[in-house]
Amino acid sequence: MTQPTRRQLANAIRFLAADAVETAKSGHPGMPMGMADIAEVLWNDFLRYSPADPKWFNRDRFILSNGHGSMLQYALLHLTGYDLPIEELKHFRQLHSKTAGHPERSETPGVETTTGPLGQGFANAVGFALAEKLLAQRYNRDGHAIVDHRTFVFMGDGCLMEGVSHEAASLAGTWGLGKLVCFWDNNHISIDGNTDGWFTDNTPERFEAYGWHVIRDIDGHNPDAIKAAIEQALSEEGKPTLICCRTIIGFGAPTKAGKESSHGAALGKEELEGARKALDWPYGPFEIPQAIYDGWNHVAAGKHDQAQWQQGFEAYEKAFPSEAAELMRRYHGELPADFLAQADAFIAKAQADGQTIASRKASQLTIEAFAPLLPEIVGGSADLAHSNLTLWKASKSVATTDPNANYVYYGVREFGMTAIANGLALHGGFIPFDATFLVFSDYARNGVRMSALIPAHAIHVYTHDSIGLGEDGPTHQPVEHLASLRYIPNNDVWRPCDAVESAVSWKAAITRNDGPSCLVFSRQNLPHQPRSDEQVKQIERGGYVLADAEGGTPDVILIGTGSEVGLAVEAKKQLDAAGLKTRVVSMPSTDVFDRQDSAYRESVLPNAVRKRVAVEAGVTGFWRKYVGLDGDVVGIDTFGASAPAEVLYKHFAITTDHVVAAAKAL
Amino acid sequence: MTQPTRRQLANAIRFLAADAVETAKSGHPGMPMGMADIAEVLWNDFLRYSPADPKWFNRDRFILSNGHGSMLQYALLHLTGYDLPIEELKHFRQLHSKTAGHPERSETPGVETTTGPLGQGFANAVGFALAEKLLAQRYNRDGHAIVDHRTFVFMGDGCLMEGVSHEAASLAGTWGLGKLVCFWDNNHISIDGNTDGWFTDNTPERFEAYGWHVIRDIDGHNPDAIKAAIEQALSEEGKPTLICCRTIIGFGAPTKAGKESSHGAALGKEELEGARKALDWPYGPFEIPQAIYDGWNHVAAGKHDQAQWQQGFEAYEKAFPSEAAELMRRYHGELPADFLAQADAFIAKAQADGQTIASRKASQLTIEAFAPLLPEIVGGSADLAHSNLTLWKASKSVATTDPNANYVYYGVREFGMTAIANGLALHGGFIPFDATFLVFSDYARNGVRMSALIPAHAIHVYTHDSIGLGEDGPTHQPVEHLASLRYIPNNDVWRPCDAVESAVSWKAAITRNDGPSCLVFSRQNLPHQPRSDEQVKQIERGGYVLADAEGGTPDVILIGTGSEVGLAVEAKKQLDAAGLKTRVVSMPSTDVFDRQDSAYRESVLPNAVRKRVAVEAGVTGFWRKYVGLDGDVVGIDTFGASAPAEVLYKHFAITTDHVVAAAKAL
Repeated sequence: MTQPTRRQLANAIRFLAADAVETAKSGHPGMPMGMADIAEVLWNDFLRYSPADPKWFNRDRFILSNGHGSMLQYALLHLTGYDLPIEELKHFRQLHSKTAGHPERSETPGVETTTGPLGQGFANAVGFALAEKLLAQRYNRDGHAIVDHRTFVFMGDGCLMEGVSHEAASLAGTWGLGKLVCFWDNNHISIDGNTDGWFTDNTPERFEAYGWHVIRDIDGHNPDAIKAAIEQALSEEGKPTLICCRTIIGFGAPTKAGKESSHGAALGKEELEGARKALDWPYGPFEIPQAIYDGWNHVAAGKHDQAQWQQGFEAYEKAFPSEAAELMRRYHGELPADFLAQADAFIAKAQADGQTIASRKASQLTIEAFAPLLPEIVGGSADLAHSNLTLWKASKSVATTDPNANYVYYGVREFGMTAIANGLALHGGFIPFDATFLVFSDYARNGVRMSALIPAHAIHVYTHDSIGLGEDGPTHQPVEHLASLRYIPNNDVWRPCDAVESAVSWKAAITRNDGPSCLVFSRQNLPHQPRSDEQVKQIERGGYVLADAEGGTPDVILIGTGSEVGLAVEAKKQLDAAGLKTRVVSMPSTDVFDRQDSAYRESVLPNAVRKRVAVEAGVTGFWRKYVGLDGDVVGIDTFGASAPAEVLYKHFAITTDHVVAAAKAL
Repeated sequence: MTQPTRRQLANAIRFLAADAVETAKSGHPGMPMGMADIAEVLWNDFLRYSPADPKWFNRDRFILSNGHGSMLQYALLHLTGYDLPIEELKHFRQLHSKTAGHPERSETPGVETTTGPLGQGFANAVGFALAEKLLAQRYNRDGHAIVDHRTFVFMGDGCLMEGVSHEAASLAGTWGLGKLVCFWDNNHISIDGNTDGWFTDNTPERFEAYGWHVIRDIDGHNPDAIKAAIEQALSEEGKPTLICCRTIIGFGAPTKAGKESSHGAALGKEELEGARKALDWPYGPFEIPQAIYDGWNHVAAGKHDQAQWQQGFEAYEKAFPSEAAELMRRYHGELPADFLAQADAFIAKAQADGQTIASRKASQLTIEAFAPLLPEIVGGSADLAHSNLTLWKASKSVATTDPNANYVYYGVREFGMTAIANGLALHGGFIPFDATFLVFSDYARNGVRMSALIPAHAIHVYTHDSIGLGEDGPTHQPVEHLASLRYIPNNDVWRPCDAVESAVSWKAAITRNDGPSCLVFSRQNLPHQPRSDEQVKQIERGGYVLADAEGGTPDVILIGTGSEVGLAVEAKKQLDAAGLKTRVVSMPSTDVFDRQDSAYRESVLPNAVRKRVAVEAGVTGFWRKYVGLDGDVVGIDTFGASAPAEVLYKHFAITTDHVVAAAKAL
């Protein structure tokens, strides 16, 4: 082989993918074989990236929203010179390999986001493109376009069927994200077969209805057509582009091409041999001729591009040193040097002020204090700004070109919001927060899970956190949500009991950079709790003794969170008076408390004290972990009802009296 | 007042709504005031309904997808003569009233589905319309159009922003649901204000891209225009219709009309007085002149329509007695007389056969056995038919006109699927099941919650129920999902350990008619467990002693579900050998077990035996409810990984050895 053809370069992807799936005996060969020609043109002719430095700031972002085609991405990363040796491809889908079944950002260099749950990669990409737009409008200066990169997305029919594609595409159109370019793998096949029976949308018209630039009917196996389409996409700066590519799934497989049988299973020995013949690929499994490697290798070219950008950045740095420093600080996820001290001062002041306010209001006061210190904060709400209390004085819509734009009006799109926030976080340079009612975290649930799994440093603000929401009724009253969110691994849930704990929860969510936090706030006012300086510090440990029994070991421990801590404190008075030495533990974050050393946990919840009552306006089963079989839980295991909050608390017996009775009955 | 004008009739809605919100001091006056004129034309000139019999089979269905405008529906129900007295309207949003903050099917006659979580009412409506189509094509005969009704939907901008609107609209277009007519309340206002900044879709073009019939630009305050639009909608039989109505939110409020301030709060005394003047409505709060009542009352007209239909139905009954009987049996939610016996015979045979198969395969065998007995079964999967194993021999796509159509190819639309299934169940005549991977229950989560809250007799089938899914990796491996689904009130989760428990779980889900069941099945093979007849019967109790300690009280109790029951049974052998009298409890449904009487629960889990180990490939915290602080749980509290199932079980230490060690360590 001398100079390989484009088809030969693409075939390297096809066979790396098909052979890896064959070796693993599981995986998805059809998509990589179908999209290989598109990937070849994009990566070789357009994409700006540096395999030697996968985290180069100004790289173009490539996102595989149809993540089941992971081998396409692994093949690309391997061929272009990322640190992903052929051995890793041979160990596709095996434990401890860098080639998981679906692309995982935490496992593989060059993977921008973890994909697989369909539609979310696309929505993440909208967040990436928004991040680029916001950084560009804040930091670029005339002659210094230091933020200037694109977001490219591969997506399949499945991504387009998912509702989240609607939410994300609509916002991308509204925001005019001109540097977002998406390729639709229009192969007319999904797992159940030919999509005629269940996917009849006119997708080009649909995207035009969102204000997108749509390039129709591109032959996804014709490199010239693909190249022309991408050039056309890049020439459109005011709208995101959808390039509709007609492709054949499993391209090259003699009997399975164009059929669902190539989608999600190994082709089989015979079919694979047939494909080798059909595509004139005489090489063995995982055998790539040097000329093909040479045709793909992008290490030098990537270094060159990066060096050129670096030169430009240094010029910018000289001209605008503070902007350059701030941008890099943000990109590296470092907080301003004085943030912690300022946060602690704010928390101390909150303790001193002792305000009785709703924790959602306390949250807003905290945002008002912290956001001016942190230009990386980009907030937003799913059309509940005035209920979630997520606007602050300096909020400016991201739909503008304002350099300080920092607020997203997401509309009623909880799932899209969450996945876009994940994208903002993953791009670098942002700590996003999003917001809705706690009950509607349901709509975003897999997005929250992905925040934790990827992980993404995103903050999910959920207000109206219980039946305390009141009259809107059971459709709007969370019951199972606190427990369910806590069970998502690597997700820190906070439910503060007053303004002080609310401020601490924000500090924790901002400083935590290895995953998401859910900050859960009340609609109704919550009484301020007195604390020593030591107790204020202990809030960060997730659970602590808020009010202790006098004189040694307590007889009873009451554990509360959020709006129910006040009930526990009142109950303690009655129990103390009745001669039961009572401790109150405030437990704003069980996730954080569970990570404390055992000595600390024992100091808060001594194993010997088994008379324990937990109180939380949510499902009771969760709390058995802390109160065991011999304790009791005051909570709610049914749906709520429509009535004023105080009526509901009484009706569902989440009251001081009930806590007292439960404790006495132990 | 002599003959009231249309505007006066509509104003009755406006002021009942605004005054009820004013009295409750919370609620949403803007939508009822904005949509009153549309409602007036629809309900007085087109809708077929019988206030005296809200459950009349052939009524048109009216669904308020923008459920926050609940007072519009309550006003309509009151004015037309449903059993909803004015006192109930005066107690809007109060405990025990029939007028909850959002419309609730279980509380209020005439409410077809519970709405509030946006977009889902619309998706339910697609299910209602599909139900009508399927019943019509099965039961109607020439000259006997006994199934012939429409589904009308009110929806707002919020419903249209939600992703689920995309999923449901796409399927409605594909299915050509000509009797579905939706009114878009295009008032350009959502809670955050003018939607210019976050909702710029060209909605008419979007719906045309789904294959809908779209009627543009109707003045929602002009009864003639509304009437003409509805007539045009009814003339289109092959496509669903979207009528785009320009409306003014809070129509009539002097300063708040057209503004978000009228959306979600009481107008205030002065504004309300101003509205009375502006609309020339001299009547006090809750005062409706008799002429207005007379103009609205539909009791006689409804009885007349129903009687006419009844006459037709009786003729049908004579001509097609078995069809008529089957339809009414289905509509009343009664199972065929011999179903229980046949189900029990199938279960007994499964116990006798003793097959070692995956529980998803056992599920398919059960469907194959039960579906022919139950024409009300309508199944489906979100593009995973061959993984979920939801197809059976007699499956026929609902996209056809086949009288036996019973299978829905939902495409990759988990949330839409679930909400449509809820609609199918609520219409009457169907027991729907839907299916996806357990992890993607996340996408549908609020739909599952709504199944339980409404409640709807829907069955959610979730396969690939743990890290046993293997190579697809952590994005596809549920960890927290079993616990999280169990915490949804009124939702029965089943995770069977073999083919016998799988069959029992299906029987339970079919016979339970007061809420949903989630049936959770494995990808991998599960060993058959021996049982006495008594034990086979006890499966229905949710938890039972599968293998007991010999000779009195056990030393140790092992509790397992699904694929981990086999591990517990193996562990028992080793523990027995080590001299520890060991009981194995199989707990396929904790929800059902928790409902058993305390004597039975004590017989399975004696309070005195505290050496307890639970084993389940999911989060451990959930099981503390059964093992307490002194027991142990073998499970997984992190995300999974990509590798073959058996490698993962070992890697995450969900093994017989670990169970044995945990039990010995107690």
